[in-house]
Formats: sequence, C-alpha cells, structure tokens
Amino acid sequence: MPDVAVLGASGYAGALAADLLWRHPSFDLRFVTSRADAGRRLDDLHPRHRVPLALQAPDLDRLGKVDAAVVAYPHGAAAPVVADLLRRGCLVVDLSADFRLRDREVYERWYGEHGAPDRFGQGVYGLPELNREALAGARLVANPGCYPTAALLALAPLARAGLLEDVVIDAKSGVSGAGRQATEVTHFVSADENVTPYGVAGHRHSPEIDQELAALGAPVAATFVPHLVPLAQGELASCYVRPGREVAQAELDDLFREAYADEAFVELAARPPGMREVRDTNLCRIHAQADQRTGRLLVFASIDNLWKGAASQAVQNLNLAFERPEGEGLS
Amino acid sequence: MPDVAVLGASGYAGALAADLLWRHPSFDLRFVTSRADAGRRLDDLHPRHRVPLALQAPDLDRLGKVDAAVVAYPHGAAAPVVADLLRRGCLVVDLSADFRLRDREVYERWYGEHGAPDRFGQGVYGLPELNREALAGARLVANPGCYPTAALLALAPLARAGLLEDVVIDAKSGVSGAGRQATEVTHFVSADENVTPYGVAGHRHSPEIDQELAALGAPVAATFVPHLVPLAQGELASCYVRPGREVAQAELDDLFREAYADEAFVELAARPPGMREVRDTNLCRIHAQADQRTGRLLVFASIDNLWKGAASQAVQNLNLAFERPEGEGLS
Amino acid sequence: MPDVAVLGASGYAGALAADLLWRHPSFDLRFVTSRADAGRRLDDLHPRHRVPLALQAPDLDRLGKVDAAVVAYPHGAAAPVVADLLRRGCLVVDLSADFRLRDREVYERWYGEHGAPDRFGQGVYGLPELNREALAGARLVANPGCYPTAALLALAPLARAGLLEDVVIDAKSGVSGAGRQATEVTHFVSADENVTPYGVAGHRHSPEIDQELAALGAPVAATFVPHLVPLAQGELASCYVRPGREVAQAELDDLFREAYADEAFVELAARPPGMREVRDTNLCRIHAQADQRTGRLLVFASIDNLWKGAASQAVQNLNLAFERPEGEGLS
Amino acid sequence: MPDVAVLGASGYAGALAADLLWRHPSFDLRFVTSRADAGRRLDDLHPRHRVPLALQAPDLDRLGKVDAAVVAYPHGAAAPVVADLLRRGCLVVDLSADFRLRDREVYERWYGEHGAPDRFGQGVYGLPELNREALAGARLVANPGCYPTAALLALAPLARAGLLEDVVIDAKSGVSGAGRQATEVTHFVSADENVTPYGVAGHRHSPEIDQELAALGAPVAATFVPHLVPLAQGELASCYVRPGREVAQAELDDLFREAYADEAFVELAARPPGMREVRDTNLCRIHAQADQRTGRLLVFASIDNLWKGAASQAVQNLNLAFERPEGEGLS
Repeated sequence: MPDVAVLGASGYAGALAADLLWRHPSFDLRFVTSRADAGRRLDDLHPRHRVPLALQAPDLDRLGKVDAAVVAYPHGAAAPVVADLLRRGCLVVDLSADFRLRDREVYERWYGEHGAPDRFGQGVYGLPELNREALAGARLVANPGCYPTAALLALAPLARAGLLEDVVIDAKSGVSGAGRQATEVTHFVSADENVTPYGVAGHRHSPEIDQELAALGAPVAATFVPHLVPLAQGELASCYVRPGREVAQAELDDLFREAYADEAFVELAARPPGMREVRDTNLCRIHAQADQRTGRLLVFASIDNLWKGAASQAVQNLNLAFERPEGEGLS
Repeated sequence: MPDVAVLGASGYAGALAADLLWRHPSFDLRFVTSRADAGRRLDDLHPRHRVPLALQAPDLDRLGKVDAAVVAYPHGAAAPVVADLLRRGCLVVDLSADFRLRDREVYERWYGEHGAPDRFGQGVYGLPELNREALAGARLVANPGCYPTAALLALAPLARAGLLEDVVIDAKSGVSGAGRQATEVTHFVSADENVTPYGVAGHRHSPEIDQELAALGAPVAATFVPHLVPLAQGELASCYVRPGREVAQAELDDLFREAYADEAFVELAARPPGMREVRDTNLCRIHAQADQRTGRLLVFASIDNLWKGAASQAVQNLNLAFERPEGEGLS
Repeated sequence: MPDVAVLGASGYAGALAADLLWRHPSFDLRFVTSRADAGRRLDDLHPRHRVPLALQAPDLDRLGKVDAAVVAYPHGAAAPVVADLLRRGCLVVDLSADFRLRDREVYERWYGEHGAPDRFGQGVYGLPELNREALAGARLVANPGCYPTAALLALAPLARAGLLEDVVIDAKSGVSGAGRQATEVTHFVSADENVTPYGVAGHRHSPEIDQELAALGAPVAATFVPHLVPLAQGELASCYVRPGREVAQAELDDLFREAYADEAFVELAARPPGMREVRDTNLCRIHAQADQRTGRLLVFASIDNLWKGAASQAVQNLNLAFERPEGEGLS
Repeated sequence: MPDVAVLGASGYAGALAADLLWRHPSFDLRFVTSRADAGRRLDDLHPRHRVPLALQAPDLDRLGKVDAAVVAYPHGAAAPVVADLLRRGCLVVDLSADFRLRDREVYERWYGEHGAPDRFGQGVYGLPELNREALAGARLVANPGCYPTAALLALAPLARAGLLEDVVIDAKSGVSGAGRQATEVTHFVSADENVTPYGVAGHRHSPEIDQELAALGAPVAATFVPHLVPLAQGELASCYVRPGREVAQAELDDLFREAYADEAFVELAARPPGMREVRDTNLCRIHAQADQRTGRLLVFASIDNLWKGAASQAVQNLNLAFERPEGEGLS
C-alpha cells in the first residue's frame, strides 16, 4: 500500500485531503504537516475531519520518504517544496497554481517569479475528465483551480465542438474558497447577508481558464468574474456562450451526453444545479440550455470548491496515478 | 396632507411600503389591506415594521377615498384593482408588472390576459433617475421590477451613449424576492448554503429590461439569468457589456459621473459594491470597469430588492407625484 | 440480507433513513413510500440523497412484505401503520412519538387519542447507549425524539448517580427540525438572522424527557425550552443541573468516562462542542463542567438532529435488532 | 449644540455610535479616532454607516476639546483614556467594563489590574431603565455589557419583588459580539451552520450581572452561559428563575407591566421575542411566562447587541446626561 503525506494540512483543502486519504482503503497516510500549527492534532483543528494525527513541522529529512504527497501550499511557496519532493522520488499532486501554467511569461505576469524555474511547466493538468490519458504516468500533477474545474467541465464540450466563440463566466463561491486565514473578508460579519464581486478583470484563475480552453480548441479571452456568497462550501459557474452559429437544444444535449456519458463524477441535470446538491462530493453537476431568444448557450456547473475543486480531485488524481479505481475512497 | 393606503400590505414589499408611509412626514397612511390576513395587525405579522394598524379586507367602498394608493398585488390581480382606484380618482403606484409593458402582445406572451385591457399601457415607468420628467404628472406609476431597477441603472449610461451592443446580466437576489409565500423554494433548508439559477432563459423581467433598454437607445436582447442566494434582502446585477468599440476607463468613469452626479440615490463606488452596503436603503451603488483584456465593460449594481427594488422606490415615486422632496421619508 | 422499507420517505428524516439504508451493506432497501409525493423520485426530491427509487403510495398489500420498516410519519398517523406492519410480522422502528410514552394518560394529554390503543406502550425506547439490552429482541422500537436524545445522553450519568436534583435544558435546533413543510416558521426570511424560543413550557418532548429521566433514577420535572436557530441541521442541549451536593470536576469526569468509555457514538470533548462538529454523523459529543461558583453542573451535548436525533439512530437500532455491528453503514 | 467624539470608532460598536451621533439632531460629532485605521474614512471601513469622516489618531491635545465622548476601547485600555478625558472636563460614556464593577477585588480577579485606580468605581451604571435618576448628573457613565443589558432588563422586576431565588441565564449572541477582529472564531466558515457555547462558567459579564442583581435586591450567583449563533447582530437572554414561591401568570404579568409601562424602549411581547424583531433598534423585547409544571418563571429578553447592548444605549445615556429627550436620534 503506497505511503502518502499531506503537506500544508492545516488549511481547508489540505485538511480535507488528509481526511480522505486517512479513510482511503488503498493509501496509507503517514504524516501531515503544518508550519504554523505543528504540534496541534488535526482533529482538534478541524473537528469534522476525524484524523487523529498531530501536525508536524515540514522537515522532510526527519519525516522520511513517502510514495506520494499532496501539497497544499500557497502559490510561490509550493514550487520549491514540490521540486524537493520530486527529487526524493515522490509523486506529487500540487494544489497550488505553480505548475498549472505552461507559459512562463504568463505565470510571471500573474504570480511573479517562479519558485523552481527548472521544473516550470512540468505539471500535468489534473482534470481527469479532460486529461485522463496524460495523467496516467504523471509524476507531477497540477491540480486545477476550483473555478477552472467548474468552468472547464462546463465549457469543454463546446470548446471541442468549435462552439465557443465568446464566453462570460460569472462564478459564485462559498467563503472557504478564500482560505482559512482570518481576514476582514472572511469575517462572518463581512460575508453574512452579502454577495460581493471580487478579483474583477484580474482574478488569477483567468489565464488558467484561457490556457485550457485554448488547449481544448477555443482560443478565447474569457470574461471571468467570481463572487463571494454567504455559505461555507460550494461553487457555481454560470457560463454565457456565443457559439458562433445557431445551436438547437437537441444538439446541445447530444454534445454534453457524449462528452460525459461515461464519467462517474459528472452528472447532467434536468435543471440548473444548486450548489448544495453536490456538497461534500467529488461531483460536478451540469445543465446546458440553448436560449433561442438571444442565441446564447447557457451552461451552469456546480461543484464543491473544497472537494472536486481541490481535495477530492487530488485524490482522484492519486487514484489515477496509482492505477486504482478512479472513484476509490471518494463516495 | 394627502391620505394614502397600501393594498396588499401583508407581503414583504407592501408591508415595507406601509412602514415607510406610516413614518413619512407628508403622507397620512389611512389604511392597509390584505385579503388573507384581514384582522391581523401589521406589526404582529411583520414585527420589524412598527405599523400599529389592523389589516382590512380590501373593500374600497367601505374603506373610503384616499388620494393615493400603493398596490402590492401579484400581476394579473393588480390590474382590475388599479383600474378601480383610478376610476375613483386615486393616484396609483402599482408594484406589479401589469402596467410596465407597453406592447400588449409581449405582455400576453409573458403574463397571459391582461386584467384591465382599456388601461393597458397607461403606466408611466417609475424609475425616477431615468424617467423623472414623465413621472411628474403621472396618475398611474408602474413601479419597476427589482431586477430591471438594478440592471437599468447599471446600463442606462451605456445604452444612451450607444455603447451597448450586447449584454449578459447575471443577477443575484435574496430570498425575500421570492415572496412571503412558504414554498419548497423559500424553505430555509432549501435556500440555506445554496445558490441556484432560476427562470433561466425565461424570467418575466426579461421583456421589461429589453423594452426599457430599447427606450434608452439600445434595442438588444439581453441575456438575463437570476440566481437565488442565501440571504434575506439584497440584489446584485453583474452586467457584462460588449460596447461595440474600445472604451477606456476614463471615458467610462465620465459617462457614469455625468449620468449620476446629481442623483441622491445612485452612488458610484470605487470597488464592486457588496449587497449589504445598501441594505435597508433606497440606494443603488454602481461600479463600472473596462476590462482591457477582453474589451468588455463590467458594471455591477447593488440594491435592496425590497427597498429600491420595490417599496422605497414606490415612495420615491409618490414624493415625485405630490411634488415633495424626492428623498422625503427615505433616509 | 433482510429486506427493508421506509414509510414516509419524503420528509427529511425519512429520506435520510432511506439514503443510509440504500448504502447499507447488510440491508436491502426494497421500497420507499410517500402519500403526497408518490411518483417522484427520491433523488429528485432530495438531490443530496442519491437514492434512485421512485416514491410509492403506501399500499402495503401491493408493495409486499419486508423484514423491517422505518416509519417516518407524524405522531397520530404513525400508530395505525405501525400496528399494521407488526401484524404482518414486520419489525418496526418508529420515528414518531406514538410508542415512546408508557403512561397512556400522559400520552393523551400531550398528543390526544392514540391511533392503536391495543399496541400502546409496546415500543422499546430506542436509545442504544442507555437501553441496549432491551433493544436486542425488540419488534417495535420507539426511536427517541431529537431533543430527548441529546438531553438524555447529557444527563444519564448524573441521573444514574443520583446527582440530578433539578435541571434546566435550553436546547437549540436547526430548521430541519421543524420538518419539510413550508410554513411561516420555516420560511428563509423568518428564520434567517433570527433565534426564537418556541414551545415554551409546553413542548411535547417534555414528558418524554421526564419519563426517561425517571427511568434512570431521577424523577424530576425538567424545565425544557427549545430554540430555533438559523442553520439547517444540528442540535445542542445546554443542561444546567443542581446535583444536590457538591461535585468536583474530577468526579464529574469519572462519571462520564465510565458511562461512555465503550460507546462508539458518544465522544467526550475537552471543550463545549459546537453543533457542526457532529454534522452528518451519528455522534453525540458531550462536555461536562462543574461550576464551583454556583455549584451547578453544566453539560452540553451536540448531535445532528436528523442523524443521531432521528434517521441514523434508527439505523443503529436496526443494526442492533438484526445483530449487525452497531455502527454498520453509519460511518 | 454639544461637541462630541467617538474614540475607537473602527470597531462595530464605536462605528455605530459614530453613525448615530452623526445623524443626531442635538450633538455635533467632531471627530472619530482609531489607532490602527487612522487615515481611513469611516464610511469606507463600514459602508453601511454613512459617516464621511476620516478616522484620526487618538491624540487628544491635537484634536481639541469636546463636551462629551463615547469611548469604545477594550477593557484595560479604556481606563487611562477615560481618566484623561475626565481630567479635560469631558463627559464620558465608556463602553468597556472598566468602570462597571464597584468591587476592586472582583475587578482584578476577572480583568487584572485596573488602568486608572484613582477613578475606580466612579462610573454610574448606564442602564437608564433601571438607574435613570443616578444617570442625570453623571460625568462618567459605565455603559453596560450587552449580556447584562438583556439579562438585567429581564430579571429586574423579579429581583425587586424578591422573586429571584436562583437563576440560569442561557444567552445567545450574533458574531458581531465577538468584535471586528478576524480570528478563528469569527471566521465565516467557523461560525456558519454552528452554535457553540463559550466562556462557560467564566464569562466576564458574570460578576457584572451578579453585582447589579444584588443592587436590585437579589444577591444570587447567577449561572450564565453565552452561546455564539450564526448571525451578525442580535442577542437573546433566556432566563430560568426559581422564584422561591408560587407565582401565577397574572401576578407575573402585573410585575412586568408595572416595571415597564412607561418605558419607551422596553416592549412586553405576547410571545417569546425573536432576535430579529428588535434588530437595528434600541428596543428590548421581553416575554415572561410562569411554568406551572415546574414552578419556574421563564423570561426571554431580546436586544440588538450593538444597539441597546452597546452603541444606541450609549446615545440614550448621552441624551440623559444632556437632558435631551431620551429617545432623540434613536428611532
């Protein structure tokens, strides 16, 4: 049974990844690390995750070798740690943005200098439903951002069919997406009874969405605006597409059915999916509708930002990497 | 001091209109009506509104004449009551959709048969910031829908400047927008920790938005999708505009400043406005941003759906109709 | 593998019981019923519960025999259905109050006439941690109310030790506790940003709590007041006990440790437990503290009202009845 | 018109006090201070409060003399500032605990060393409904804590009548009560869908409640436990009283009616009051019920923790001090 670890397990995504791996039948969670919370037990910090391990300082020499690691560090900080793990022969699923982008100039424009330049661009983009073959032999998986996960699953069938001339992505995310750090933004009194657009015309998931849409055949500059909504976990991407020609509902239905008929974690819904329907699951629920009045295609995709948008997708990627059933430990 | 009444005062908007008029220095609230809740006191039904009047059955012969009435009935039911009030010489501000549309065929397609055909189209569209002159002598004010209020205030400067070639309006509303009726949708457990698109490609505020945008000079078919968010009161319209040509931030800023510099109830914000900033006020807060990367203009407008989106805008209209200071009783 | 059914599966507790039994390794869920929603699929009505069965009208002759049934009917309506099932040789776990009370006069005072008088009092009180032996051979399990579950687990060690002279139970419950019916109380706008005491000095769980405390050796009239809090699922019982003599913290700790050391579903916490720590689990978390200043013992017990307070406790009881591991299908 | 200032106006209570004084017809708000946020505009920090003043560093020499100040500092930090203001001839309403307690030993046990020992005990306890006469000529008003405000208004009629032999106060407060500082406790994801007891058997409002109950004639050691509930503003004190003898509902009703008949800001409610009924008001709503079954008296009092529990009560005290109508600027 492969030994695994989670580095940066005190945050929401890292803690959930630890919880999923702790209960996973085919991985052995050896250690969890946190610089700031070293010494505290994970189930004390996150009572809902029943992982009875103490968080350890991230000293890899002392902690010993594992076969794979999930790295849940902020961008910038992740790259050198990932490079170190790879050097030690460890397979890595990186939750940060450091290995998602493939154009260094774009990376530097949005994120600044890269922390492990000789490894730049070596990540395999970890969206299994769109990239399964490349992920099979990967040693470094760049786990997608939460917004790109929802948006790309919503748009891939259109991008591949040449029906994505232009798109607006209006996304909504629960507060856990802003991280565990206590700030003015994440204060209950700020977020409660409120909805706020943020990162307008400049959210870092923009280049990631554009890069992957281009890879799917649609080189567009997507308009992407996320909004903070008053709930803990959940994400909805509302996508407004100009397809370039008239598309009937039947054609649209066929496209999505063909794309996702065999996918265990993508469900096509008869109605626009509410966020809560997929809470605490690795599912993405999608509803696509052709609006005859305007000629637009409306596609709504709902995920749990901490699950399919981060931690459970990381486990799905680990399953793939170790040739386990893709959904093992996820339902 | 003019005598006024609120018909249909048991719902959220009607009750708030009653509350505002009860405390208004220049109107005398004579009675409030409700068919279903006749006999109950308004401050018992809505404890936050401290109106110590009992709701009465809506028998106009018995209740006597008032100078003006706010009618808070559902569409369809409103029209005959409004016609009756007009016949009695009463000025009416109608919160329903019955007198907003000016094309009968469009009305019938979206709402069915009209309840007072000989009065059809006689409403003056009650968005003071865009229509103040026409409202001065009006006897029948068609109070705008909540979504059109936010969307039109966001888009009017662009429509008038010929910079609205195409638009997507992604709107978010609190649960009070769904009305006081207890349903599966308004149940706490359904709405809590959830965001759901609804009325996709078919919400009744669509033709109203299109009609008024056309009147402002932009005959577009707007893509409009509302979403239910887990909070009581508040509304945000996120508008994504293709202007037809390049527009710099400075030009955009000028446009909005010119449009709203003298408006007491429209505030231009340096950041995208959160819903809560305007809660319990008649304000609309707007932020407009030119996205150089995509060429789109992003405009965000935030209102309180029960206030500027319904009841306080009705009082603003009443103030106008009776030549009172427009903000009287509203701050 | 025993065949089981859930009667009344459209409500929150019934639907969750169906979900748990659908995924249970040792029971075969044969059918789910609902009078009002017959024909609808359960996973359409409750998307989070992925039970792909259509709800059926509750016609037992047509539906055929099952070995056991969970009945999730309102009190009064449950009794005759339970009696019918028992006649058919079916083991029943009844979620209603109909078979919890053992004094008919008390039942009639709080609930009115009983629906199956010849079966009155035949239920075995289904709180496994306190009543495991009696449950072993039971054919009719009276699943406890949610408040009694939390309160009795909090108070049992004190009651048995003769340290419960007087008690105030201030309880807080999420809105799902009020049921799936859409009412003024369960409307989002009513419950949001609000806390309200209800059933003051007259909640029907009062006689149930008193009966079971007496059975444990503490014949008190507990003061019990529940409050509605703005969240979907969760329950907290804050218990304020006069023990009749001085009790030190160490003695208190020993009492609780002895009572629950071997219980898989009761956790003793170092701090007063938040509701969310046990959400979506069959756990009860308890913290007991001796207040030297006042001489009172403070005991806080947190459960998920739909899980340990209803559906998962029903499954725990089924496991016991069929001699399965008590936690099977529950973690 | 008296000149006033708010020191520590960046927190929730201070900002609201500034907002109320800014709109107050009889006070002239000269300046607002904040050490950490000096330079920021108050209406930028708290958009709902429309105070167009920049926060200033708290340099009293530079800021000049005002007739009165509201001090919204944490305990400990408040005392020396209050002493300085008094020296300058300024009337002070202090929101901290520093001048509420009258027994120095008790203060030191709960709060540590006092920051202005020669002024210790000079505050007049600022609960106007219970202490109006003493407040008339006061130069230093110790504004009560939020929990004592609700609890004392609930219990005073019983204490005065000799009917308070023993009491449990189970209180619930919205998250704003924990202050504007971003912490693990105030993080949205921590508080959302959760209820947590805190400060169990050791909350600092305990000695304040006991002191004032004793002053009212009931020298008890009250059991007091606050709980954090998932909402922004609001507070409910649920009080469970042993009166020492039988009390009928009619007698109870008379007691409360007599106590509060002439009070503009205390309302007796026919039902237990929900928190939301008094949101954004200076009101306290009370419901008292005699429970024949247990002999207990149940009293529920609801306030807005930032209004009557802090800022609006401070303004009420200022009105009293300057012989203005007590409710001026508060409705």
